[in-house]
Amino acid sequence: MEKILQATLLYDFYGELLTDKQKLIFDMYYLNDLSLTEIGQELNISRQAVRDQINRTEKVLTEYEYKLKLVEKFIIQQNSVKKMKLLIEDIENQFDLKQEIVFNIEEIKKIAEEILEC
Amino acid sequence: MEKILQATLLYDFYGELLTDKQKLIFDMYYLNDLSLTEIGQELNISRQAVRDQINRTEKVLTEYEYKLKLVEKFIIQQNSVKKMKLLIEDIENQFDLKQEIVFNIEEIKKIAEEILEC
Repeated sequence: MEKILQATLLYDFYGELLTDKQKLIFDMYYLNDLSLTEIGQELNISRQAVRDQINRTEKVLTEYEYKLKLVEKFIIQQNSVKKMKLLIEDIENQFDLKQEIVFNIEEIKKIAEEILEC
Repeated sequence: MEKILQATLLYDFYGELLTDKQKLIFDMYYLNDLSLTEIGQELNISRQAVRDQINRTEKVLTEYEYKLKLVEKFIIQQNSVKKMKLLIEDIENQFDLKQEIVFNIEEIKKIAEEILEC
């Protein structure tokens, strides 16, 4: 599960740098959950050739991350925003909040949620 | 100025995908503010060759952004966090804030500032 998450996150960030064929096979395997054999039959190539392509694609994506660290930065940032959201919800749960504060709190929470949905 | 900002932002994100030579010339031109002639003398190539290399590097960086849109997403996210920070500061300026709220507000502001410094 961890490996699939990692692969799809890398794909979200760097997928557009792959070739069309790499994207197609990656989609079939990770997003549409087809087996190596099914993909091979579909594309008229051997099961091993599919496996090699997927390994190669994972290597390419991992190399981009090694150089750019954008997924790593993204995860750190998402965790920071999650922390902000918890702190905001904690304020939200206080009694007797002044109306001026309530408005801002709701706005901040909305923005945090928007960021987390990205 | 806008162009320099744009180029250095693209470089911050995708610079590690450039060749060492592209990085060297980009650094000399945009970060160390050397002229085309000075860079040419330093590297023993013509002024025009330097110009060509810089144009090529800008094109490569722009193509990465065209495909990945990571700088665009980064700017949108930074603007969202700036908005959160303004809303937080607005709460901070309210009178008679309860101590429990003050602590959370300060924490949220600190996290927002950390994100904006990235």
